[in-house]
Amino acid sequence: MIEQSWSKKEKTVARRAFEGAYEKECKDLIEKIQKRANEAKDPSDIWRLHDFLNKRIKEIENKYDYRYSVLILVFARLMEEGWITVEEIEGLSEDKIFKIRHLAEGLI
Amino acid sequence: MIEQSWSKKEKTVARRAFEGAYEKECKDLIEKIQKRANEAKDPSDIWRLHDFLNKRIKEIENKYDYRYSVLILVFARLMEEGWITVEEIEGLSEDKIFKIRHLAEGLI
Repeated sequence: MIEQSWSKKEKTVARRAFEGAYEKECKDLIEKIQKRANEAKDPSDIWRLHDFLNKRIKEIENKYDYRYSVLILVFARLMEEGWITVEEIEGLSEDKIFKIRHLAEGLI
Repeated sequence: MIEQSWSKKEKTVARRAFEGAYEKECKDLIEKIQKRANEAKDPSDIWRLHDFLNKRIKEIENKYDYRYSVLILVFARLMEEGWITVEEIEGLSEDKIFKIRHLAEGLI
């Protein structure tokens, strides 16, 4: 992918979209943890919850990478997974939006 | 500590007390996890819960060591922490009960 330049305005939009997705995904994870915790009965459920948390935390830490060199790919993944909407990246260049949407749809 | 021999009857009592303590402590941990999960609001609470779980799981895995060579010490610790009562180790020799109780009280 050709390196993109990001205007000041685009950086503001990107940062807001990025942080919004992170908040949404963490909120969703909290709800999943609550459900699993409240359903836990046996000691083995503690270990299962621990494994689940380990896996999800690693996934989130890897995914939320705010380097401009990879941000198009990050946004595409977040859109594919439903954490970012097209409306939330309004303000980025048409070219960037096109790439994000089409990568998210697996068309590129 | 001088190596102790364990009769068949004592082994039955010990196993039941050990497993009972493990069940109780895990049940208590499940309640603590539920409380923390249900109070979680921010992403940082996920990481805090993860750290808490890591720590408690390591502690439990280290503590519940069913080797007869260390069982007196394990029972003393479980009694000190409230996971085993004197009634639950009835059937062990007087000598073992004495050691467990006094170690639990920090008198030996």
